[in-house]
Amino acid sequence: MSFTIQNVLIPVEQSYSTVDVQIIDHHIRAIEPNLEVVGTAVNGENKLLLPGFVNAHTHSSEMWQRGIIPPTPLELWLAELYDFAPLEPEQVYLSALGTAVETLLSGGTSLVDHLVLIPGKELETIAAAVRAYQEIGIRAFIGPLIQDESLTQGIPNGGIEREHETYLRSTEATLELMQEVVERFHNPEAGVNILVAPTGIQLCSDALFEGCIELSDRYNLCRHSHLLETKAQQKLAQEKYGCSALEHLKRIGYLSDRTSLAHCVWLSDADIAILAEMRSTVVHNPLSNLRLGSGIAPILKYRQAGVNVAFGCDGAASNDSQDLLEAIKMGSILHNITDTDYHHWITPRQSVEIASLGGAQGLNMADELGSLSVGKKADLVLYNLKSLSLLPRTDPIGLLILGRPTNTVDSIWVNGKQVVAEGNVLTIDVDALRQELFERSQWSINRQSHTLSEIEAHYRSVMGLSPQTPKIHS
Amino acid sequence: MSFTIQNVLIPVEQSYSTVDVQIIDHHIRAIEPNLEVVGTAVNGENKLLLPGFVNAHTHSSEMWQRGIIPPTPLELWLAELYDFAPLEPEQVYLSALGTAVETLLSGGTSLVDHLVLIPGKELETIAAAVRAYQEIGIRAFIGPLIQDESLTQGIPNGGIEREHETYLRSTEATLELMQEVVERFHNPEAGVNILVAPTGIQLCSDALFEGCIELSDRYNLCRHSHLLETKAQQKLAQEKYGCSALEHLKRIGYLSDRTSLAHCVWLSDADIAILAEMRSTVVHNPLSNLRLGSGIAPILKYRQAGVNVAFGCDGAASNDSQDLLEAIKMGSILHNITDTDYHHWITPRQSVEIASLGGAQGLNMADELGSLSVGKKADLVLYNLKSLSLLPRTDPIGLLILGRPTNTVDSIWVNGKQVVAEGNVLTIDVDALRQELFERSQWSINRQSHTLSEIEAHYRSVMGLSPQTPKIHS
Repeated sequence: MSFTIQNVLIPVEQSYSTVDVQIIDHHIRAIEPNLEVVGTAVNGENKLLLPGFVNAHTHSSEMWQRGIIPPTPLELWLAELYDFAPLEPEQVYLSALGTAVETLLSGGTSLVDHLVLIPGKELETIAAAVRAYQEIGIRAFIGPLIQDESLTQGIPNGGIEREHETYLRSTEATLELMQEVVERFHNPEAGVNILVAPTGIQLCSDALFEGCIELSDRYNLCRHSHLLETKAQQKLAQEKYGCSALEHLKRIGYLSDRTSLAHCVWLSDADIAILAEMRSTVVHNPLSNLRLGSGIAPILKYRQAGVNVAFGCDGAASNDSQDLLEAIKMGSILHNITDTDYHHWITPRQSVEIASLGGAQGLNMADELGSLSVGKKADLVLYNLKSLSLLPRTDPIGLLILGRPTNTVDSIWVNGKQVVAEGNVLTIDVDALRQELFERSQWSINRQSHTLSEIEAHYRSVMGLSPQTPKIHS
Repeated sequence: MSFTIQNVLIPVEQSYSTVDVQIIDHHIRAIEPNLEVVGTAVNGENKLLLPGFVNAHTHSSEMWQRGIIPPTPLELWLAELYDFAPLEPEQVYLSALGTAVETLLSGGTSLVDHLVLIPGKELETIAAAVRAYQEIGIRAFIGPLIQDESLTQGIPNGGIEREHETYLRSTEATLELMQEVVERFHNPEAGVNILVAPTGIQLCSDALFEGCIELSDRYNLCRHSHLLETKAQQKLAQEKYGCSALEHLKRIGYLSDRTSLAHCVWLSDADIAILAEMRSTVVHNPLSNLRLGSGIAPILKYRQAGVNVAFGCDGAASNDSQDLLEAIKMGSILHNITDTDYHHWITPRQSVEIASLGGAQGLNMADELGSLSVGKKADLVLYNLKSLSLLPRTDPIGLLILGRPTNTVDSIWVNGKQVVAEGNVLTIDVDALRQELFERSQWSINRQSHTLSEIEAHYRSVMGLSPQTPKIHS
């Protein structure tokens, strides 16, 4: 498993350099011009080498519903998502493969799958995703998505008394399940990592968070959660805790330097100070935040406060793709409209650092991943600078981040193992995957979500929208 | 030139239908199931047919600088752009081809090239672009970018007296040039249309606008211009006219139902009413508006006021690509954060209509282009629904617009002539184009713009930014 990439362009301080890169025993062993060839020689001419990026938040099985949910805010979108969620572990396997393929071919070598569990088939769901990620060879961080409150509890009451169904699984049973998941599947050496990942304050009790903290401490697991994605959740936190969600999570001990929090759109300056103090990571999902109308996360403020930031695609039903370079571009340029001083804007090189090192840090792996550094694991992506979308030759990183790279990934190695060559995934049969996805689906747009019709009037009322006949346009 | 597309999916009222489409003599002649095959039979199975989109605002020669200009607002970005603009017509030819290839492969069959002219080689510049568009076979609308004031005049004075250089070409000479351009190149039947296109109120005198109106009326040309892209331009209009730019343009007679205006970010509600009254078109360029920190154009307000909207990529140095589907996606979902009522959000089918019919209307061609209608010109795009990025099968238009389509365009016809087949451009040698773009450029990031260094301190002062040492980060 040794190889040497020759004559490849890499970024160095404000410039580029042409070097050779030696990879031995899964790790980067040397980066210098004119190295001796160890193992296989790889021609790096007219190619750019970067550390692999991290798709730091997604839900793989949403792939089955991408493109179909009408433009609606999160709370209504979720109702429709859950009414039509896939129920077969084999579907989870296929969508995990699809998510991994798109992540890889847009520069990602790691992904965080906040995995929706099929009720009654929870372990099978996780086993299916693990199988997919092991087969394709992407570095996987799987956070089984757990909650102990039912969907309607995620919408503020707004002073209206409501009844809620009991959630289908008890807190205790959920924590027992998580322990079994960790014991069966957590295997960092093999590239499979389990995270504790309660879905968020909107649908989880303190007891569930506390059980997750205990598991995280006992097994040294990273922690993940959604946080304040929508204005509705900000309202809900006030109703539920009488303080901000950040203050509450800090009090119960969920925040830490290995906690990553998806979205963080509706934080106050005081909340940002808490994040900085606790050294937790914000995972920015710009596309889903726009698609669902959630808002613009104050990413420039996070960076100025010293909060670590990573990029995620979020699930494919709210994005509706898994192209990490698209999320990176939008997560970079979107913030230029939030601060008139362009000295604060994110530069393409900073975007690369957020996508790689920022992602690694959020997973407590900044010592091992996220940069082209001797001694780090070889999670590497080689981009073809003769691709039309990276021409003419200007600033390769500028064009990779700000352009629309298409068919630009030439080769990928994860943990030193080659997964992509000449733009093709080596480890699975992508044509067969396409065929499976085709056969197991059908074009159809006229589905009706019964949960949506149950909750829409209350949602409109509590969010101050006009009480017109609830009608989702299409 | 007759052909029949068989068994192809097309959108019909809130659903899809599988039909045959007959194209005879450049036009759509029938759309029905089970038609007789006229001319060549084209297999449309598992494919989606849509009208070609319009890339309603771009500057093709910016391709030479894509990816390289640091994150800066328009006024400073322009200084750098102009310091390094290409000076050879052959470069213009190549970047016009590149712009056309990327537009085609993302669903566009028409483009509006607001073409930067090489000083002293104005006619050669236009001839080069015309040659490129004729060769590749895209429907071209070329608006030679003209002005009669120099760059520094585009930044508000803010009460500070400044001297400006005289612009390199007089108003009169510019209008004479435009007349020659129209007489030589305007040829709608051949798919080449000349627009009058003064760059905008920030760099043009009333005399230039008035001369353009006269040409537009005499030769029946559409009118194009930038309008209120930045807050600085809004300030400038007040300094220059003592009223809004819209009021002024209405007064001098530039607004009409064949006037399209790029950007329109900083309009008041009163300005929007003027646009609606004059039936002018807004060309929305969401990516460059974000990249340059210009702001979010109030597109939902335009739609509610009945103003026609089209989508553009804008030039590749402020985007930094020419992927029209990316611009459509962002120009659709971006506005969800500007209105809490999701009933106002743009649906994927509405996005398709904006991109096709909206674009055609802005070019005064809604009777001939922009929809799948019997009698219209055959500017058609066939998407491969077995592409991984359009799987699994859900709502094809939802996924095309909200996803990240990659390698999805199968075939394109412009005016009934096939330009793309099986994803490959038939009319030019794209590999040779890549090679030319490669050879005529070099990786380089350490260029210094002297104009930028001259104007940055004034810009910061007049825009109320802290007077820190002017320093563009990289």
